[in-house]
Amino acid sequence: MGEIIPHWLTKQAELSPNRIAIEWEDGRRVTFHQLKTRSQQLARKLANSGVKKGSHVAILSPNSMEMITAIHALSYLGAVIVLLNIRLTAEELNFQVKDAEVSHLLTDDSMLETGQKLNVNVITSFTMAEKSAEKDVALQEEINLDDPFTIMYTSGTTGFPKGVVHTYGNHWWSAISSALNLGLNQADKWLIPLPLFHVSGLSTLLKGIIYGMPVYLFVKFDERRVHEAIMTKGITIISVVAVMLQRWLHIMEEGERPDKLRCALLGGGPAPKSLLEKAKKRNIPVFQSYGMTETSSQIATLSPTDALRKLGSAGKPLFPAQLRIDKKDNEKIGEIVVKGPMVTKGYYNRDDANRDAFTDGWLKTGDLGYLDEDGYLYVVDRRKDLIISGGENIYPSEIEGVLSGMEQVKEVGVAGKGDPDWGQVPVAFVVPRGKIAKEEIYRFLQQKLAKYKWPKEIYFVDALPRNAANKLVRHKLLDLMDQT
Amino acid sequence: MGEIIPHWLTKQAELSPNRIAIEWEDGRRVTFHQLKTRSQQLARKLANSGVKKGSHVAILSPNSMEMITAIHALSYLGAVIVLLNIRLTAEELNFQVKDAEVSHLLTDDSMLETGQKLNVNVITSFTMAEKSAEKDVALQEEINLDDPFTIMYTSGTTGFPKGVVHTYGNHWWSAISSALNLGLNQADKWLIPLPLFHVSGLSTLLKGIIYGMPVYLFVKFDERRVHEAIMTKGITIISVVAVMLQRWLHIMEEGERPDKLRCALLGGGPAPKSLLEKAKKRNIPVFQSYGMTETSSQIATLSPTDALRKLGSAGKPLFPAQLRIDKKDNEKIGEIVVKGPMVTKGYYNRDDANRDAFTDGWLKTGDLGYLDEDGYLYVVDRRKDLIISGGENIYPSEIEGVLSGMEQVKEVGVAGKGDPDWGQVPVAFVVPRGKIAKEEIYRFLQQKLAKYKWPKEIYFVDALPRNAANKLVRHKLLDLMDQT
Repeated sequence: MGEIIPHWLTKQAELSPNRIAIEWEDGRRVTFHQLKTRSQQLARKLANSGVKKGSHVAILSPNSMEMITAIHALSYLGAVIVLLNIRLTAEELNFQVKDAEVSHLLTDDSMLETGQKLNVNVITSFTMAEKSAEKDVALQEEINLDDPFTIMYTSGTTGFPKGVVHTYGNHWWSAISSALNLGLNQADKWLIPLPLFHVSGLSTLLKGIIYGMPVYLFVKFDERRVHEAIMTKGITIISVVAVMLQRWLHIMEEGERPDKLRCALLGGGPAPKSLLEKAKKRNIPVFQSYGMTETSSQIATLSPTDALRKLGSAGKPLFPAQLRIDKKDNEKIGEIVVKGPMVTKGYYNRDDANRDAFTDGWLKTGDLGYLDEDGYLYVVDRRKDLIISGGENIYPSEIEGVLSGMEQVKEVGVAGKGDPDWGQVPVAFVVPRGKIAKEEIYRFLQQKLAKYKWPKEIYFVDALPRNAANKLVRHKLLDLMDQT
Repeated sequence: MGEIIPHWLTKQAELSPNRIAIEWEDGRRVTFHQLKTRSQQLARKLANSGVKKGSHVAILSPNSMEMITAIHALSYLGAVIVLLNIRLTAEELNFQVKDAEVSHLLTDDSMLETGQKLNVNVITSFTMAEKSAEKDVALQEEINLDDPFTIMYTSGTTGFPKGVVHTYGNHWWSAISSALNLGLNQADKWLIPLPLFHVSGLSTLLKGIIYGMPVYLFVKFDERRVHEAIMTKGITIISVVAVMLQRWLHIMEEGERPDKLRCALLGGGPAPKSLLEKAKKRNIPVFQSYGMTETSSQIATLSPTDALRKLGSAGKPLFPAQLRIDKKDNEKIGEIVVKGPMVTKGYYNRDDANRDAFTDGWLKTGDLGYLDEDGYLYVVDRRKDLIISGGENIYPSEIEGVLSGMEQVKEVGVAGKGDPDWGQVPVAFVVPRGKIAKEEIYRFLQQKLAKYKWPKEIYFVDALPRNAANKLVRHKLLDLMDQT
């Protein structure tokens, strides 16, 4: 049986009733006491429409106060929350609500129309839910860390998406692991420019509850407003993906220094070295990290003392986590395999996938990487993104890293394309900054990259395909060829 | 099944190999890497004398590097460690080693003679153990948090002492709970002037491993040397009991301020208000706390923001803990009852005691206290120390608190004495500072305390009975009457 702790929001509301829990970019603020009171009220209203312990309730919403209240309200009822990505089509959403056996759907008012297209019994907007009467039900006073709390679908390029089940314990251990790594300061305030339906956003929201720390929320990333918040609102930590950091750096004025920021936690895949070097020049403490939905956010992070010495590494596995590389003896790079109490116990209703992915508590991540002689992790690529060209392994991220070092390259993505001679060849998609010729790019590559790694084709595009967390979606790159 | 984490010392040695793990008052220092290497070597040597997973191994030692190495060595073998109090008589020790089914005893060289009087099969001093050859055995690479790690005996005034079993998880959760309360700073260094065979000392030793934080160790408390360490060695946190704080304050020079010290964690029973006020004047951030062996160190602590507003309170239960007062409706004070993952699962081989003490995971502490209107805990007394005089409840700590406010009173203890008229009456034992007459004491009490609470007898003594953790042992006070 799992460990039992008091309900985390009730507890934090007892410990720090008047401390700010949530702060929005537009100035709205909510204390832990207010957040608890509202969430408990909403829980009693949702109980009225039949939500109870074990119900599977989906939420379809951009970041909003109502969404946060709903997440906690559902935990007070002991319901399992299915967090839906608002960018998906009705067909994709229908797959997920069916797969996760969702009985109730809660939507942001703006998403109600989309929501009504889904095959769910009870469909309610936040405003409709607020209008319900409160039912006199017992709310959860304790949390059993073994109980399931959320289900999030991983994109999965082969086969159908899989629902990652997170227990309360997975989220708890993720928060604790991060605290042991980053430390816990009284003055901390963590900025989330990421969607709460992704684990990166949700995990930070829960860290706020567990640490008693205010989180500063954006509905969506905007580099100018994020920059202003960092410079004037006492932000000490921010979660970002590479492209956000890039955009932010691009608009920073010469000489500006975000003095209070003690950590820019960088997730969402390997970052180009040139970006890390730019951030270093600006005194921005970038902590490269490695994680995925299955690990309830980062499972490895480069610690402050090593940030400069091991540029480009995702660091070491967090204190309660283990990580090894599954590889042949004569190879350096292999599949990253992880274990720890923040790792999901499995995919919802997918015995086959679970049998494939888990062995004795170890999860095969599908990512490729290596450990250097000091045990630092370098993530190379998704295994499925690996390009095998004439028997040689080519890593798209390596080519992207080199190309993004060019001043005229704003963003770049590389993917493997089928080739009758070589099996596969790399192809690059470049969002240029100003004017640039392909010849210039090849001239730049001459000194930097072995010729067999050069992209055989280069396309100039307006934007790269990214998911809601702003992560590059490599498997959609080749679709861009038709548009150019 | 419990959560699995990597072995904590191996892990910290990987994360922070060159960071100082242990620093001694005489200047000796050991890094996490060195501590791991030595502990693993000693583990292989101990394996040679038959120690293996599940063995019950007692340690009889004052604080020493060898003792620390032995604690970790035994965890690498998966043995259960019985920590013996070096002040006990051979008879008392024999009770414990028999009760805990100890197969091996490890002693400090200075304690070998005492050790040899005990009924244990294999008795080895640290030096003898170091001379063994190393056996090629597999060492624990992981820790299952549900596995038992240590057994410590509680003094227990009625009946025989009981062995409190701590799992690895109990210690883990204690460390995490404390971090969520006190924060985690990169610069932290925690001073332990307490014995490692008590939970107060051992828990801090383990916090050091889990946080990656140096601990600064004393063999025994000495106010002048502790003062010097605090002023010159970058100490940020110190664990103390009231009498240590008192002695330290007494030797501090006017105007001295321990600037780096961010927390003096005060345990070991209620502290007199006058002491807390003195500390406040000196800018010493005293965090009053409440805990016991059964809760693996503090389970409630007064947080920094409330330290001044709620002087005398032990604060609120730590984040993962729950606490309530078991009392009749019309009463304010009742028995403190606690629950949480840091609370022991039970006493070793004591089904009866466990049935009495535990209900649905809640532990009856035997302590009396109340919660104020804001939910802050005030610990009044041990239930067994309560004096019932003519039907009135009299709390020794209240009388002690008042008397210790007199400049001429260095230390004071109060106990109940049988009385034919009143059932019990309070009797005070005073260690005076300079000269003082009993009349002066009663004059002092006139304004401060209702007459029925006045001690019926006052004895002047040279010292009060204290245990190895320097806690007042009230039930031995009355023995002093014969000596005066």
